[in-house]
This record gives sequence, structure tokens and C-alpha cells, in this order.
Amino acid sequence: MRIALDAMGGDHAPLETVAGAVEASVSGVDVILVGDRDRIDPICEDLGSTLPIIHAAEVVGMHEDPTKAIREKPDSSISVAARLVRDGDADALVSAGSTGAALAASAITIGRMEGVLRPAVAAVIPSTPPSILIDAGANPAVGPKHLLQFALMGTVVSEIAFGVADPTVGLLSIGTEPGKGRALERLATELLEQAPFRFVGNVEGRDLAASTVNVVVTDGFTGNVALKVLEGATDWIGALAKRAGRPLPEEIARALDYESTGGAHLVGVKGVVVIAHGSSSRVAIRNAIHLAATAEGVVSEIGRRL
Amino acid sequence: MRIALDAMGGDHAPLETVAGAVEASVSGVDVILVGDRDRIDPICEDLGSTLPIIHAAEVVGMHEDPTKAIREKPDSSISVAARLVRDGDADALVSAGSTGAALAASAITIGRMEGVLRPAVAAVIPSTPPSILIDAGANPAVGPKHLLQFALMGTVVSEIAFGVADPTVGLLSIGTEPGKGRALERLATELLEQAPFRFVGNVEGRDLAASTVNVVVTDGFTGNVALKVLEGATDWIGALAKRAGRPLPEEIARALDYESTGGAHLVGVKGVVVIAHGSSSRVAIRNAIHLAATAEGVVSEIGRRL
Repeated sequence: MRIALDAMGGDHAPLETVAGAVEASVSGVDVILVGDRDRIDPICEDLGSTLPIIHAAEVVGMHEDPTKAIREKPDSSISVAARLVRDGDADALVSAGSTGAALAASAITIGRMEGVLRPAVAAVIPSTPPSILIDAGANPAVGPKHLLQFALMGTVVSEIAFGVADPTVGLLSIGTEPGKGRALERLATELLEQAPFRFVGNVEGRDLAASTVNVVVTDGFTGNVALKVLEGATDWIGALAKRAGRPLPEEIARALDYESTGGAHLVGVKGVVVIAHGSSSRVAIRNAIHLAATAEGVVSEIGRRL
Repeated sequence: MRIALDAMGGDHAPLETVAGAVEASVSGVDVILVGDRDRIDPICEDLGSTLPIIHAAEVVGMHEDPTKAIREKPDSSISVAARLVRDGDADALVSAGSTGAALAASAITIGRMEGVLRPAVAAVIPSTPPSILIDAGANPAVGPKHLLQFALMGTVVSEIAFGVADPTVGLLSIGTEPGKGRALERLATELLEQAPFRFVGNVEGRDLAASTVNVVVTDGFTGNVALKVLEGATDWIGALAKRAGRPLPEEIARALDYESTGGAHLVGVKGVVVIAHGSSSRVAIRNAIHLAATAEGVVSEIGRRL
């Protein structure tokens, strides 16, 4: 797997992105740095890195309109990296820049897979094995057919990237009894019950942290809120514990640390795309690159099953 | 404030409900026990309680259809307790039984306030002062006008029950920039910006645990998922810490303990209604009764502002 890294994306780019790429390359992953050569070169020199650099003169800012930026800045680091994937010069794209821009570059430049109604964000929830929350933010408003496809794509990520055999799928709702929820959940249930994977019915918000199923499926609005509540709660408790002078035990802090998961997959496009947190440190970037590297075969398997 | 307690509602009823009522009455709250006299009497005797008991022969089970149960079981403890409030024989209803049944009894028996489109659940998020999440589950599908009313009712709870002056209101969405979210959030924003309270714009899932605003407004589907993710996350981290042999410091465990908040207000009906967790212990019931007792004036103030 050759990973095209948007070296300019993220709050701590390009220093932390390049450093993360160097760390990942030490463990054998091929990384291509995409971004402003004048800024990346000195960092590579300092770190003794010989990673290949593809120059990109522009950057998409966090507050630009994503679709407009992708159309008007063909020389931005995210656009150039996406073209490398489109043209087969890289197998995966990793970015800690604007999520909207990564979604837009993936949809416009790399392109949606045939048969996929909507690409979706498959977030990785820390547990053993990690569970998948899909859609975690790409599609705020969807129909039942979209949820069916999200579930199918989520099971492929669970199987291939995390080695789960025959993953269980739960539909996020507000009660475990069938029929609980909105019309969307009732209609989706009919489709999910006929689907070729292990659908276990409704799950609730509590099941997300508890990881009672391998794949939690929902619309991108609910999924994004749920993911951020989970992250906010873990940060809050960590801060409370620290302030009380009794920080959480190291192994728990690590288990809760969203940097350790590296990011989220964007599935349904013709290439592996991993979206990392904007605040990613080098550790998070390294883990995002590893997350992309373990997803070989996800795209072809989604294509096979659709 | 005279509180009618559904003594038969909850996983540990009637022992824990009666014990919680006795504890609350010690600190000066008037509680009326509603339920099966034959089962409540011996508990009261054991506890040396002289609290008044109103007999109710039936109980609504956790898995009954709520509306059907309320219509067909007029002698159920929740129905009898709701009638006490309707008839002015009690000022508030507290129940740890089926949430659906409490909602149905409140809507059907106590009745919606004039001008209220939909009663809503105002959940109490532990922080100092507590913040309000509304709607936390009563209305899975709503329009912008409903969100406006939820926000208004939430500010009244924040002011009157928790003493917050001029509470801030945030709209739960998937990005802080205006326009982020679904059509619902965009349309609601227009109404909220004109409203006579301090609307600060969009907030995200992370803001829920961080309590960056006093009132978080959303639809009952998103709100219920968010509340349960938060509860699940705190339980999960507490369990992880315990398993690691380093349980969370006492003051944090208490801050995170949902029993300490006692429950959620159902607002928009002609009486104070507090819904407690089904798994409530006597401590949670005592706190739910106190939550109801601090809400004097909420109903009249909502009426005044609508």
C-alpha cells in the first residue's frame, strides 16, 4: 500500500504530519508526502527522511467552502493527493485537514464507486476489536436504502481491516424493541432484516461505548453527534481525574485516546481514504497511516458485495 | 410541593421507591405514595414511615404499549398518581416506571399546557450548575417550531430549578458554523435567533459533557441517543478504572453518577413531572423527588412566556 499523505492538512502541519509519516515509514509503510516542498524539505532534512515529496502549492483552509475549494484549488495538497489515488500512483489518501475538503476531494476527484449511493464515514470506536460507527458525519439526511449500504460497507471494514468474522450490525435507535425510533429506523429495519449480514436489531446510545455490536449504523447527523459526545465524555472524565490529582491509569488513558485509532475511513469511493483529527499529533498521523495500510482490499470487497 | 410518587414504578419498586420517599420526607418534602397498599404497608412499617398511601391496584409493565396501558388501566399506580396532579391533590408526579407510560399519563391525564405543541423531556446533565438537554426522548421527529418551544421550556427549567440567570442556549448540530446540520437546524436557527433568550448558535456533541451552554436543544431522537452515549461512556470508563484496580476518585464518581441528578423533567404539561431511571435506587428516587420539589413555578412560568 502506497499512502498519499496530505502533509499540509491539520492544526500541526506540516511538522507533525511529516514526523508521523517518517514514523510510519520506519515500520515499512510507503508514504508519499504531498504539499509545499519549501516547507516540507527542511523538516525532512531535520528528521533524516528520504520520503518522496510531491509538490502542491496551495492549501485548503479549515473554514473554506469545501466543494468550492476543491473546484478552485486544483493545486491544493488535498486535491493533488486525491489525484495520485485516482491515477493509481497511490493506493490510499490520508488527511488531517478540513473533513469537508477531504470528503469533497474524495467524491469529486477519486470518485464514488459504481453502485454506491453515498460515500460514508466509518469511524473507529476504541475497543477490542475496534467497532465501527457508520455514518459518522458525511450524510446528515438519508433514507433507508442508504442505511442498508452503510451497514454493508461497515461490515467490510470490520472484517477486512479488523479481522472480525461475520460482524454483528446494530441500528442506532432510542429503544431496543423493534419499531422504536423514527420512520427511517422502521423502514431501514425491514431492509436490514433481509440483508446478507448478521443484523441484531436496534441498539442504543449506551451500546456505543460498550461496543456490544461490531457495526453501529445510523444517519450522519446522529452518528456525528454520538461520536463527538463519546469523545467529549472521555476528554471530560480524563480532565476531571487529572484535576483531582489522580489521572486515569495509563492503559485506560490509552484505550480512550482517540489518537490511538488514527481516524475514520471514508468508504464508498474508489480508493482507501482515512480522515484524521484536525488536532492530530505525529502519533495520530502515524496511526492514521497504519489504519489506511490495513484497509487493503476494502474497496474491491465493497465492490464485490454491492 | 406535594409529590405523588408512583411507588410501583422501577426495577426495585416498591422497596427502593418507598425508602427513597422516606429519605426525601426527612428533609421536609411532602410525599404521597401511590400503589398497592398491601405491598407498601409492610415496607412503611419496617421503615417507621407514616407517609400517606393512595391505593392503586394495577401496575403498567415496562413492555406494555404505553398509550394502550394508560387507557385500559385506570387503576394503575402511574394513572392514579397522574390524576392526583390533575385534580390538584398533588403538585408533582415522580415515576421510575415505564417512561412511555409516564409520558402517556402526563399527556392524557394531566394534559398538555395551552399553547404547547409537544411536551418534551428536559434531561439534567451533571455539571455546576447542571445543564439541560431538551428533548431527550419524547419526540423523535419534530419541526423547527417545536425546537423553539423546547428551547424556551429548557431556559425556564434552567432558571427556576437551577437558578441560572439568563441561560445560554445552543442548538445541537454537527459543526459550529451557522448553516451546519440538516434543514431542521437551519430553519430552527432562524427562529431561535429571534427568540427572547440568549441563543449562542450551534453546539456539538463535545459540548454536552463539557457543559459549555446551559441549555442544549435538539429533537428527541438525537437527544436520546446523545444522553445514552454520555451515560454509556461514563459507565464504561468507571468500569475500566475499577477493573484496572484504580477506581475513579469518589468526587468524580459522584459527579458522573446519573443517580445524583435524579432524572429528567417532562415539561409542557399542566404539572411538574419527573421521570427517574428504571434502575433507580433509593438515593436516585430521593434525588428525583428533590428535583421535582425544586421545580415549583416552572409550569406557571412556561405558561407566562408562551
